Amino acid sequence: MAAASNFYSVVAGVGAGTGRSVALKFAKAYPVALLARNPANYESIVKEINQAGGHAIGISTDVSSPDAVKKAFAEIKKEFQGKKLAAAIYNVGGRFVRKPFLEMTLEEYEAGYESNGRGFYLFAQATLPLLLESVETSPHPPSLIITGATASLRGSATMSSFASGKFALRATGQSLAREFGPRGIHVAHAIIDGVIDIPRTHDWPVNGGVPDGKISSDAIADSYWYLHTQPRSHFTQELDCRPYVEKF
Amino acid sequence: MAAASNFYSVVAGVGAGTGRSVALKFAKAYPVALLARNPANYESIVKEINQAGGHAIGISTDVSSPDAVKKAFAEIKKEFQGKKLAAAIYNVGGRFVRKPFLEMTLEEYEAGYESNGRGFYLFAQATLPLLLESVETSPHPPSLIITGATASLRGSATMSSFASGKFALRATGQSLAREFGPRGIHVAHAIIDGVIDIPRTHDWPVNGGVPDGKISSDAIADSYWYLHTQPRSHFTQELDCRPYVEKF
Amino acid sequence: MAAASNFYSVVAGVGAGTGRSVALKFAKAYPVALLARNPANYESIVKEINQAGGHAIGISTDVSSPDAVKKAFAEIKKEFQGKKLAAAIYNVGGRFVRKPFLEMTLEEYEAGYESNGRGFYLFAQATLPLLLESVETSPHPPSLIITGATASLRGSATMSSFASGKFALRATGQSLAREFGPRGIHVAHAIIDGVIDIPRTHDWPVNGGVPDGKISSDAIADSYWYLHTQPRSHFTQELDCRPYVEKF
Amino acid sequence: MAAASNFYSVVAGVGAGTGRSVALKFAKAYPVALLARNPANYESIVKEINQAGGHAIGISTDVSSPDAVKKAFAEIKKEFQGKKLAAAIYNVGGRFVRKPFLEMTLEEYEAGYESNGRGFYLFAQATLPLLLESVETSPHPPSLIITGATASLRGSATMSSFASGKFALRATGQSLAREFGPRGIHVAHAIIDGVIDIPRTHDWPVNGGVPDGKISSDAIADSYWYLHTQPRSHFTQELDCRPYVEKF
Repeated sequence: MAAASNFYSVVAGVGAGTGRSVALKFAKAYPVALLARNPANYESIVKEINQAGGHAIGISTDVSSPDAVKKAFAEIKKEFQGKKLAAAIYNVGGRFVRKPFLEMTLEEYEAGYESNGRGFYLFAQATLPLLLESVETSPHPPSLIITGATASLRGSATMSSFASGKFALRATGQSLAREFGPRGIHVAHAIIDGVIDIPRTHDWPVNGGVPDGKISSDAIADSYWYLHTQPRSHFTQELDCRPYVEKF
Repeated sequence: MAAASNFYSVVAGVGAGTGRSVALKFAKAYPVALLARNPANYESIVKEINQAGGHAIGISTDVSSPDAVKKAFAEIKKEFQGKKLAAAIYNVGGRFVRKPFLEMTLEEYEAGYESNGRGFYLFAQATLPLLLESVETSPHPPSLIITGATASLRGSATMSSFASGKFALRATGQSLAREFGPRGIHVAHAIIDGVIDIPRTHDWPVNGGVPDGKISSDAIADSYWYLHTQPRSHFTQELDCRPYVEKF
Repeated sequence: MAAASNFYSVVAGVGAGTGRSVALKFAKAYPVALLARNPANYESIVKEINQAGGHAIGISTDVSSPDAVKKAFAEIKKEFQGKKLAAAIYNVGGRFVRKPFLEMTLEEYEAGYESNGRGFYLFAQATLPLLLESVETSPHPPSLIITGATASLRGSATMSSFASGKFALRATGQSLAREFGPRGIHVAHAIIDGVIDIPRTHDWPVNGGVPDGKISSDAIADSYWYLHTQPRSHFTQELDCRPYVEKF
Repeated sequence: MAAASNFYSVVAGVGAGTGRSVALKFAKAYPVALLARNPANYESIVKEINQAGGHAIGISTDVSSPDAVKKAFAEIKKEFQGKKLAAAIYNVGGRFVRKPFLEMTLEEYEAGYESNGRGFYLFAQATLPLLLESVETSPHPPSLIITGATASLRGSATMSSFASGKFALRATGQSLAREFGPRGIHVAHAIIDGVIDIPRTHDWPVNGGVPDGKISSDAIADSYWYLHTQPRSHFTQELDCRPYVEKF
């Protein structure tokens, strides 16, 4: 665990799955700030990292609130002053609404966009200026890595809330990759196509319940780290991740 | 012009281009309600249709406002009582913001979603129940037709506002096609890939200024009518439209 | 049926479904030449068109053979001398092989490409020069219309033969659209996503056997005619067609 | 360099760029067989690997010839007897023809398919049975990794030869991923979107000639190795690679 780096990282959206694995992975190289609405989602991870000799902080943040994001980054800059941002990961799932369209309220429909559209806008506005400051010195191209889903590519029946948010997120990610890539920032988007293996899903009979039929969140974290360490002569903008048995 | 049909149509987003052409086209078969925020955008079209023996009304509506949409459809139902909805066209462009991401305010970023995400949600919520009532009797499968753009498929640099809205719109359209297609509703999405030939753009030197280098809005209207008249054994979910000289 | 037009059309790949419907549709406007390997596939259609006052010929042609295609077009030019080509439709299905990859012979694998790659190359080489001659005078932009399939977008398990051919066909169609569009030729590609309703498939329990659960080939022909009649200010390069109940 | 592994790898299509880098990368873990039509393309790489303590052989092979491929794999099995195949990389570029369609001969058009369609079929037929034998014991899921290009996704004007081949290759790769993924084989496809930095291209003024404006072939090799080492609970089927300044 690396408490002493001149760089730090931020992970928005941590819980039992991808966020935790990503935090642990990046904490090996950089101090890390973890954002989640509910402190219960990051407290044990922060503790785990710090006890292992790393440096982590958690900040209770509603990423769809401009004030909350502003406050979170003020705290981050204070905590990590003198360090620069090397990697920002946007892994916010948000509220997942799946229901027949005519039973879906506006507020439910907009939940998808709030997390994946507005929330990402706010996160990108906060992190891109910091990432730009790291271009010259960061050990790897400063990275903004985004978690997508099957619904980033496909609007399935009854999934309009989640899919509209994930489509908007992907659009914005592409736009930023095209604008900030030439400035040295690596903006990458991962399509997570399958159920992630976390305590809550562990016993779900996905893919016939075969071993490794759910996605290992540690493997996703490896992918994000791999994306982060790509040189600027070879940026991957998009990759997919799915278990070997997943239908696609 | 058909004032006497048992069915009517609604076009949201009318102005000098696609909306006007679509209104004139559908007015040949059905009375038509035109929605636009600014009455100047529909007044002359309403007049043109009514003078030609058709039946049109215009309603000043902010489609991203739940109350405004509610009020508009109350008025529509009153005006067309006894008739059923055969076709609903969502052609709202919304505010178009193109600027470097770090100069874009949240309010500017969200403009894309407000028109194309929230606005379409409200329009679809208002029209789908009415379209469902027409399935048995409508001369053609009741249709919900959506105007997309190049930005529906591609998030270009500095275009995150518009692209995130158009991606969200496409996601929702796909989701509705999958949910309501089997119930007999035709949900179709057109990708308008090029500049539309309207008075404002007429002299733009697009595609070298060659004849027909911009898209004819009347031809778009023909496409929408063609989509509307497809039988349920052959629904087109998506098509693109571009001038013969357009780079793509 | 139009025997007297100054223009003619060619349909490669006729049988009981799309090809027949397309031939009948285009024969209303233009004399038509029908190509199929097996004369039994066009004889009754030729007869039907000619008896209805149209003008059709059938030519036994293996479209993957350069000599056969050369010979067919020599015959076509002789038959229709003085007329120009307005529309060419490539609707060749070819041999359909679906089997586990390791059981598939090279000859079976290549069957997909032979019909959809090489065959289309030969057809396009024969028709594009003729279509170019019609640009100035044809009632509609001279058109090269291509039949794709679900497998044009997706390589499913055990479908590598058909999918590699359909992908190659789509690639070539896109390339021609980009090269010949600006010269006034409309190259369009239709993705037929579902089972077509022909005598052989009529009783297949597709989509639960519901009415209209298979695609009407007459509706596909209407689409092709619609594509052909689009003005050059609005070319559709790609559209999909599927029954309302099809999963996608 | 690892001469003593119980596993070996095969790279088809080696030269100055990706193939060489991939060979050097995989040779660190496994003995490697290099296939190229022209021995000059592999001789120096074979020497380089063997002198560094690795184990490489080169076999002159026309991958589009069934006999040549058969002969090559007989030689490979003999050379590496007792070892199992862990990774097979298909990196064949083939003859690149870019010219106006009407000037392109059939033989030129088919060059794309021969390398990327037929050649890959033959390579996959030869390697998949060997990869299947390694599923239980290979240190990483046995991998079949495919080199794609911009033209895998887009048929540009005058590029029908190359694009039809690369589309066919991608279709076949998807089909194999869906068939063999559940059997434990990782089939992955990389879209190389940009010019690779090799001696021949080094001075090309690509992307304004900025540093790192071409793709590092070593970075591509790192990607292939990363793909190979992914666990079966997280297979990436497709990723793209481009320089930070590439327009896309």
